[in-house]
Amino acid sequence: MKVAVLGGGQLGRMMALHGVPLGATFVFLEPGVAPPAGQVGSVVQAPYGDAAALEAVASSADVVTYEFENVPVDAARRLESTVPVRPPPAALELAQDRLVEKQGFRSVGIPTPAFHPVDDAGDIEGALALTGLPAVAKTRRFGYDGKGQAVVKSADEAREFVEARGPGLIFEAFVPFDRELSIIAVAGLEGERLYYPLTENHHHQGILRFSYAPAPGLAESVRVRAEAYAEALIDHLGYVGVMAIEFFQVGEDLLANEMAPRVHNSGHWTQDGAAVSQFENHVRAVLGLPLGDTSARGYAAMVNLIGHVPRTGDLLNVPGAHLHLYGKRPRPGRKLGHVNVVGGDVDEVMAGAARIARHAGWNGPLPALRGGG
Amino acid sequence: MKVAVLGGGQLGRMMALHGVPLGATFVFLEPGVAPPAGQVGSVVQAPYGDAAALEAVASSADVVTYEFENVPVDAARRLESTVPVRPPPAALELAQDRLVEKQGFRSVGIPTPAFHPVDDAGDIEGALALTGLPAVAKTRRFGYDGKGQAVVKSADEAREFVEARGPGLIFEAFVPFDRELSIIAVAGLEGERLYYPLTENHHHQGILRFSYAPAPGLAESVRVRAEAYAEALIDHLGYVGVMAIEFFQVGEDLLANEMAPRVHNSGHWTQDGAAVSQFENHVRAVLGLPLGDTSARGYAAMVNLIGHVPRTGDLLNVPGAHLHLYGKRPRPGRKLGHVNVVGGDVDEVMAGAARIARHAGWNGPLPALRGGG
Repeated sequence: MKVAVLGGGQLGRMMALHGVPLGATFVFLEPGVAPPAGQVGSVVQAPYGDAAALEAVASSADVVTYEFENVPVDAARRLESTVPVRPPPAALELAQDRLVEKQGFRSVGIPTPAFHPVDDAGDIEGALALTGLPAVAKTRRFGYDGKGQAVVKSADEAREFVEARGPGLIFEAFVPFDRELSIIAVAGLEGERLYYPLTENHHHQGILRFSYAPAPGLAESVRVRAEAYAEALIDHLGYVGVMAIEFFQVGEDLLANEMAPRVHNSGHWTQDGAAVSQFENHVRAVLGLPLGDTSARGYAAMVNLIGHVPRTGDLLNVPGAHLHLYGKRPRPGRKLGHVNVVGGDVDEVMAGAARIARHAGWNGPLPALRGGG
Repeated sequence: MKVAVLGGGQLGRMMALHGVPLGATFVFLEPGVAPPAGQVGSVVQAPYGDAAALEAVASSADVVTYEFENVPVDAARRLESTVPVRPPPAALELAQDRLVEKQGFRSVGIPTPAFHPVDDAGDIEGALALTGLPAVAKTRRFGYDGKGQAVVKSADEAREFVEARGPGLIFEAFVPFDRELSIIAVAGLEGERLYYPLTENHHHQGILRFSYAPAPGLAESVRVRAEAYAEALIDHLGYVGVMAIEFFQVGEDLLANEMAPRVHNSGHWTQDGAAVSQFENHVRAVLGLPLGDTSARGYAAMVNLIGHVPRTGDLLNVPGAHLHLYGKRPRPGRKLGHVNVVGGDVDEVMAGAARIARHAGWNGPLPALRGGG
């Protein structure tokens, strides 16, 4: 069983670390030099748009998947004639454009913040009439980790953003949310669907820093709603594999912010905090194997290591800590690894996560558990 | 942090799968073609006795370790002048010769079955006077998985064995044991010692087939004794890394059968049934990192896949089952993988293990839990 992965970053690396024991081998198509996944599989170094390289990688494999959503949709579709591509390219298409994504959410009954496409200054008035101020102005494509977006507090700021970044923008209502939640779902080839417990996420400067799971104080109705939304999207897309949806929680309501057609940073806790990880379940799903138990064992806090890696010994000295490094060169703002702190006692886990956070250069207390809205 | 591993089999493969997330990279010295570890590290293909290859592998690494104990002791000792070798070569020396091993056990106060060296027919009478009949006749060196040994029921059978196999033999008393137990210990560089819960093991045709952990019905006194024995051997050898000792349990007594200066098949359950696996802890130990929690989470049964690999889907359909394949070509009697079944309920775990065993070609019921002696 050979899996071709488009992208060779940390997500591909962890897919292989969890998939190799199932008997799978991995080949990665990756434009970068010495990618994280290179330690655990073979790498074809080429741009994602290189048709010959894509063809070569795909033809050697039993299935093609991706760890990165900005793969050209046309290229993914062409591969489908020779080898299964899972998740389906339709999911890439949805995820690559924030406008298409939000329209897709709405079309299957998933609420979103108010939104409006903006291409030039003439669109601003209509957009702001819908979203109100402040609004969140974003590029429709190629944004990640908070890049390509800004909160605009006035029509003037909106104009500045549009002049600098347009066309191809979207304005969204600024949501005064209670907290950010995400759901990691996995869809099997035979229609099987499983959901991990919801995760509470805390971003800083646009980058995920902390996840807590199972999200504390979660109303049952919110869990049921999140799973129903994920199911609707899975059905709509004919989805196979792991999918993440990020929500804003406002009271007992959920507004979808974005989805990822892949394993997701907010599901990294599942490596040590769930019976079967999101990585193993993604590999199982795309290979058509039975899915594994998504239930949590105890409580988990995930701390991202951004920009620099603390001394390994300091991290491993924290009770319940599990280290996951990506083999990447340090660079400011770069995700270099994460630590999952797991245990049966929430307070002990949070105390451990706070120690990890301090080692990771986080100044101040850990963002408090938000609990239900 | 680069780890050189002498041997590139499944133990090396699993060391890397658990060590790569810590930021370690791996190079394996392995005489065989396309070894299991080749998927997760680089391989230098050469015999263990190839001084130049050993030197090259060691000089590129921060530490040398092994996943196989029949590495020439002299070669390991020579490497020590340039790079740390952990566990110490003295442990190899002990493990390579059943006579030296049993003398070593005795010298630190670990009881063993009665034993006597045998080189020719003239030694038989004295040996049998000590061991009684039946006796277990073994080659002192290079035995594994029951190879090179036989139960002799008479002086005539003993003579046949000696004529066929001598010199360099050992005769041991045949122990009517209650059960076989093993302890997996890990010793850190700074003198830290941790012990996994004891494991109950069931062999068939000389090969480990099933392990149950924590060993059910274990008297506290037996656990304490096993840990004290492991500690004595660790002290004696100045040991660093994971070590296994196999015991015969007779009532509340333990008689040491053999030790392994490495991660061990009877500790494979720790991958899914303990907080931190034996593989990760071995890597942590030899790299001088803090050791991880050895406590069990729930109950685990390990089933070896011998000779053929069942359909992956059949195995993964069993609740609580975790599959670990080695990427080896099937061959009768060959260990190709294992399945850990884990959970909170002993009966459910045993029922799952029984299903796995049937898929793996085991006819008849699972060996029953033995409980205390």
